[in-house]
Amino acid sequence: MALALSLGARGQGRTWPNPSVGCVIVKDGRILGRGWTGPGGRPHAEVVALEQAGGAACGATAYISLEPCAHHGKTPPCAEALIAAGIVRVVTALTDPDPRVCDAGHAMLRAAGIAVTTGVLEAEARAAHRGFLLSRTAGRPAVTLKLAASFDGRIATASGESRWVTAPEARKMVHALRARHDAVMVGGGTARADDPLLTVRGLGIRHQPVRVICARRLDLPAEGHLAGSLDSAPLWLCHGSSAPGAACEFWRERGARLLPVATGGDGQLDPAEILQTLGQAGLTRVFCEGGGVFAAALLSAGLVDDLVGFTAGVVFGAEGHPSLGAMGVTSLCKAPRFRLVDVHALGPDILHVWTRD
Amino acid sequence: MALALSLGARGQGRTWPNPSVGCVIVKDGRILGRGWTGPGGRPHAEVVALEQAGGAACGATAYISLEPCAHHGKTPPCAEALIAAGIVRVVTALTDPDPRVCDAGHAMLRAAGIAVTTGVLEAEARAAHRGFLLSRTAGRPAVTLKLAASFDGRIATASGESRWVTAPEARKMVHALRARHDAVMVGGGTARADDPLLTVRGLGIRHQPVRVICARRLDLPAEGHLAGSLDSAPLWLCHGSSAPGAACEFWRERGARLLPVATGGDGQLDPAEILQTLGQAGLTRVFCEGGGVFAAALLSAGLVDDLVGFTAGVVFGAEGHPSLGAMGVTSLCKAPRFRLVDVHALGPDILHVWTRD
Repeated sequence: MALALSLGARGQGRTWPNPSVGCVIVKDGRILGRGWTGPGGRPHAEVVALEQAGGAACGATAYISLEPCAHHGKTPPCAEALIAAGIVRVVTALTDPDPRVCDAGHAMLRAAGIAVTTGVLEAEARAAHRGFLLSRTAGRPAVTLKLAASFDGRIATASGESRWVTAPEARKMVHALRARHDAVMVGGGTARADDPLLTVRGLGIRHQPVRVICARRLDLPAEGHLAGSLDSAPLWLCHGSSAPGAACEFWRERGARLLPVATGGDGQLDPAEILQTLGQAGLTRVFCEGGGVFAAALLSAGLVDDLVGFTAGVVFGAEGHPSLGAMGVTSLCKAPRFRLVDVHALGPDILHVWTRD
Repeated sequence: MALALSLGARGQGRTWPNPSVGCVIVKDGRILGRGWTGPGGRPHAEVVALEQAGGAACGATAYISLEPCAHHGKTPPCAEALIAAGIVRVVTALTDPDPRVCDAGHAMLRAAGIAVTTGVLEAEARAAHRGFLLSRTAGRPAVTLKLAASFDGRIATASGESRWVTAPEARKMVHALRARHDAVMVGGGTARADDPLLTVRGLGIRHQPVRVICARRLDLPAEGHLAGSLDSAPLWLCHGSSAPGAACEFWRERGARLLPVATGGDGQLDPAEILQTLGQAGLTRVFCEGGGVFAAALLSAGLVDDLVGFTAGVVFGAEGHPSLGAMGVTSLCKAPRFRLVDVHALGPDILHVWTRD
């Protein structure tokens, strides 16, 4: 199952709106087939693994990181394929929360006389499929928030200088993290201040995640990197009703996808509405790179699932730009807490990863 | 030599104004004696190790983390003791910068026909003896700055709540770090806000480091933990000329040591003057626990040698108290940089250690 999960991880960022599933076919202690979900969600992992195994799959066991589908969607149900191939035992990590599947896959297998074991490495699978699970149960993608800061938690000096707080190793890791998410997202302030490209570069990966900018009034630089790179990666713009028609026209003409989002009581785009909109558009895993005000709004609303911190051995002092904006935390026990998943040195910096259970 | 350094580390925090040296006597691949500097600086490591070895020291090699002394101080010179014991080879890590020693120890050994090798594990020894070296070369103790902060670099919530950002494991480590320094130091603001004890507790260690409070006007709580604990650990108060006579009297009567310090251009105690004063008083290793304004002043003045960070998986947002006060850093390249020494998980938090080369 660990192998199935690691195969599934290979497709992360490329299978949305589908989950990235891993499947291993084993008989007599030998691996006959390995598969993971293809780009855009097809072919399914089980089909790939069964094809590799061929006739040898008869009498074998299939390890799958998620319950196989039981319904006729864009592909025939995988449960049928497993039965047809003569698989005698199926081990899964999770039940699919999709109401069209929800145990129907397991049931179909059992009805065909296949031995079914579920819940193997369930916690790990729940983390791996968090984006897909949230999109089905909460209608929103999973959100990973990245912050690269100084020892004292500042993302830029008083003058706004932020290139570079961290070293090339950390920045390369950021590109790898972008590639494993369906989309990279920043607030309008960061898009204006940093004029970022937000693409995956330097890793030999051609696939590009969607770039999402949340800019209430669409006041983004018309001559900037985003406007100049619409043919290299998709650009989605979440905006409010106050965005001028001319700006909408400008970006739509250049190929950006415009997503109107309701504003909250504070006049800002409502973070929950942003994520619902992105979920409806099919995204399951979103990588947020700030800025501080937008990140604080997501955290305050309880919408951040994973935190990735890069910390450099440099100090800026209190005049530096804070990594998070105001959050209205009134007492220590009410501050959002995360559980440590991983921490290690990365070049001259440290990388620390936290999650919400 | 690695063993000698690790033996020397056992005395850290207890040998000031002397260095904490380690010594190992070896013959035919067998360890005959091990020693480290005793409390208050005596006996010296070499004497302890030679006593253990006894007559067997004749013909043996001595590994010492610092050049042995050559002058008659409160003890006879260790170089003489090594010669008298019949040691045939001496390996040291560092030359003692003390003008009374400075290669005279090595020279005395060589003159007696002993083979002398120096500079073994020099970088490690330089780090271990940093406090002693700085006190001899710059007249000030080495400073370790500790900050325990949230993921976004805040040491307290907007309301000032700081107990506890980190978990018991981190707090226990803080007590262990206190015990390995000659003194624990905080600014007056922290002493007023947190009313800390600043003693070593919960480790079964009876020795207590000096507690140093830097409070320009000596406005410290008369009924607080510091005033109530003068019989359990020394208390030194660095103050300016504006401290009222009555306050000086109050603290002196209770047994505190008063250290007048010059103020800088900003009216605050000059951090360089504070450290010169502490250096003259014999301290070699000082552990600073904040607050943010005092820590920023030390960092800005280039007076912090090691940084110890504890980071918790909690977020406070921009209203929280910053871990460092204003530093006047105008550009990224001018911000003080530190090199990563160690990083690992510590309970639910992370511990990261940085140094300045």
